[in-house]
Amino acid sequence: MKGANTETVKSAQGHSPWMMEKLFNPSSIAVVGASADPSKIGNVVLRNLKGSGYRGNVYPVNPRGGEIMGWKVYKSIPDLPDGVDLAVIVLPAHIAVDAVEECGKKGIPFVIPIAGGFGETGEEGKKREERLKEIVQKHGTRIIGPNTVGIYVPWSGVNTALTVPERSSFPPAGDIAFISQSGALGLLTMDAISPLGVGISHFVNLGNRVDLNENELLAYFAGEEHVKSVAMYLETFANGREFMRVAREFTAKKGLVVLKAGRTAKGARAASLHTGALGGADGVVNGALRQVGAVRAYDEVELIDYARALAYGKPMFGERVGVITTAGGVGVVTTDYIEGSDPGMGLRMADLSEETKKELRKELVSFASVENPVDMTASGDESDYDAAIGALMGDPNVDGIILYALFQTPLVSERLVDIVARWMKEGEKPIVVGVIGGEYSQRMMREFERRKVPVYPSILRTVKALKALKMRGDYLRRVRK
Amino acid sequence: MKGANTETVKSAQGHSPWMMEKLFNPSSIAVVGASADPSKIGNVVLRNLKGSGYRGNVYPVNPRGGEIMGWKVYKSIPDLPDGVDLAVIVLPAHIAVDAVEECGKKGIPFVIPIAGGFGETGEEGKKREERLKEIVQKHGTRIIGPNTVGIYVPWSGVNTALTVPERSSFPPAGDIAFISQSGALGLLTMDAISPLGVGISHFVNLGNRVDLNENELLAYFAGEEHVKSVAMYLETFANGREFMRVAREFTAKKGLVVLKAGRTAKGARAASLHTGALGGADGVVNGALRQVGAVRAYDEVELIDYARALAYGKPMFGERVGVITTAGGVGVVTTDYIEGSDPGMGLRMADLSEETKKELRKELVSFASVENPVDMTASGDESDYDAAIGALMGDPNVDGIILYALFQTPLVSERLVDIVARWMKEGEKPIVVGVIGGEYSQRMMREFERRKVPVYPSILRTVKALKALKMRGDYLRRVRK
Repeated sequence: MKGANTETVKSAQGHSPWMMEKLFNPSSIAVVGASADPSKIGNVVLRNLKGSGYRGNVYPVNPRGGEIMGWKVYKSIPDLPDGVDLAVIVLPAHIAVDAVEECGKKGIPFVIPIAGGFGETGEEGKKREERLKEIVQKHGTRIIGPNTVGIYVPWSGVNTALTVPERSSFPPAGDIAFISQSGALGLLTMDAISPLGVGISHFVNLGNRVDLNENELLAYFAGEEHVKSVAMYLETFANGREFMRVAREFTAKKGLVVLKAGRTAKGARAASLHTGALGGADGVVNGALRQVGAVRAYDEVELIDYARALAYGKPMFGERVGVITTAGGVGVVTTDYIEGSDPGMGLRMADLSEETKKELRKELVSFASVENPVDMTASGDESDYDAAIGALMGDPNVDGIILYALFQTPLVSERLVDIVARWMKEGEKPIVVGVIGGEYSQRMMREFERRKVPVYPSILRTVKALKALKMRGDYLRRVRK
Repeated sequence: MKGANTETVKSAQGHSPWMMEKLFNPSSIAVVGASADPSKIGNVVLRNLKGSGYRGNVYPVNPRGGEIMGWKVYKSIPDLPDGVDLAVIVLPAHIAVDAVEECGKKGIPFVIPIAGGFGETGEEGKKREERLKEIVQKHGTRIIGPNTVGIYVPWSGVNTALTVPERSSFPPAGDIAFISQSGALGLLTMDAISPLGVGISHFVNLGNRVDLNENELLAYFAGEEHVKSVAMYLETFANGREFMRVAREFTAKKGLVVLKAGRTAKGARAASLHTGALGGADGVVNGALRQVGAVRAYDEVELIDYARALAYGKPMFGERVGVITTAGGVGVVTTDYIEGSDPGMGLRMADLSEETKKELRKELVSFASVENPVDMTASGDESDYDAAIGALMGDPNVDGIILYALFQTPLVSERLVDIVARWMKEGEKPIVVGVIGGEYSQRMMREFERRKVPVYPSILRTVKALKALKMRGDYLRRVRK
């Protein structure tokens, strides 16, 4: 058994999908340092696994033995049954390394040492990391972290993250794989997107990244069917050259968003204090990301906004935007962002064809504006929305559509969500939706999100999401030539 | 009575506070075009007045007479009792003008003709506006609009806006006066800020602005005690020179934020289609706003974000920011925005004094970073927050503080809100708070907002809010020299 596992581990380094499956959908998980005391981390991890619906075998490990939460406790790692896919080590750094080594000897393919106290704390910690690397070399065991919150995989119920459940939430199963070098930023961001119901396929916190890195994950996610786009928070690249190669392959198939933090000298310094690693010159990073077709995000909001646009939406081939609104002022501010250079969007307002204007004049109320932005006014109803989307979809002068779904007007109901979702499927051009408002509007946003329509709660975020689809279109056109 | 009213109206044009009080806190309101039919606008306005808690007299006007919702209906405007402060005209444009004239004859000081069908629709409508202007000249009656949703004043219960109550909400009473040329953008924005509990002192939709304009309102709000800052959405200035004069006086006392839309050629064109007015060159606008100390916003989110910062926060005198976080990655992204030129913030990271670092080293856990950003790590508790704020408040190298209140960590509770609120009062430097997260965090944001702590749900919005306080500090330093 041990031999077999080591064999498959080696192929994992070559990105065997079957192997990585053991990490994200393990048949059994050992929790080393498990505790019966509810105040201990070794108990929280067990409760989380129970709470997140993990259906595989759970093997707590604690020298005292006995039973915790109905699970038999093993007294040591060597005592564990064969065939454990994943071990979570909740012991402090100074004893975690020995535990990882025992997992390696046991042939456990994936190990997550949670604790900090490694390279980020000084020389002693750096030595511990060296030992971890030796274990990987010697036994073929793959390590996530250390100094990590680990992984969260909603569809398989694996969650190793330690949070206060009543104060933070995890997203449901969805289309976006989220790789984060920072654990806290990852958890905060997942909590922040939960109210909208945005789904995640996988979350991996790289932590100190002594072994498993973003490049291997990216290569794996390229062929993973749950994943429609990848969002990545990095302070440093594990291997820039390798990233270029893997990212290029990835973006040929799916959208990639990278928030590369530490882009200023002081930001890079803050990052090095934070993770102990040093970043590269930012101009180089910018050029590299563009070259491989990754969309760059500058903060946690853009990161997921763009990843949603790329996961749900069509690429935009061209720069000409048609805007549909029922509120004139919203159309004006949108036009300013599209046409302005502050910040430059690389978009411009489409000049609608005469045919389109004629069609719109026929369909909309007499005082509507059939110029771009198309302003249906507060008298716009659902069939007006339908007609306006249809007209812009058919207009050869339009490459992409921004639609404001403003539910405060009397003639628009929840059915608008169906209309837009249908056009998302049938239309050949990308649509992004802006919704501005309070509780009812937020509920409608969740409906759009559930139907995989990229929806945003402000004018700027809506325009920027279309920009991301345009960057993807530009890239695909360039490489497909 | 009539004569007396006309007298006071004239002084209103000189911004008599007592006069404007009749608009925002009227002792009696006539609703001309009132209806017993719940589907009619003339009924919705009455219901809204009842629902918003207006305690003055309500006089419905309808030729049929009788009674609506317990209120006696007057058959005509001349039949109304003397001393009506405000008349809301819900009749269509072609008969609204005559009604406004009758209100003028009756000596009613303020009239709001709601309907569209004026200058924005062509020649016929423009003629109607000319007649309205003549009525103002002849009778001294002041007109808000036409083509307006009117006003909303939470503390006096006046609300003339027509919305679908189950789909949109109005903010509670608060510190920000909101002047909007666009009705829809104003209503959407108020709806959008309601979940956070952001309060408004007055909302005025200028509409086609044949008479009452932003300059008169600004002059009035300068001395109005409910108002701590003004947020303004404009597509055109009523009178640029007058704006400069009034804004300068206003900003000597309170903060002013202006979203001047139509800043690009196509945006200005969209605005002219929308309101029928033409804007000026944007470079001039930019210079003018800077000169009078108004903070420019580029969208509906910045508009209220900045107005809240200016209403609740202290000006920032200097550019050096101290950042407090428990999540390293959040500190790195914040540093990048502060130090980066994309977008330029006019801020920079403070170099903490040796004394501060010594103090922090003493107070915080050993693996915390006492460099800037101060990273207390997930082990940071409330007393650490308190100590860190205190240290930065006392550091002569720090001009303003960004604090991330991240409630996902185990050692931080609701009491953090009290700690920050206390420092907001006692400290001499501005603090802005960033909160990133889901439901629980949103509840904490409402708590911060209730305590008038400027709080924002993303890194970028937090940094930009401090930028607004720095712009205000720069201006005040410049004019006070």
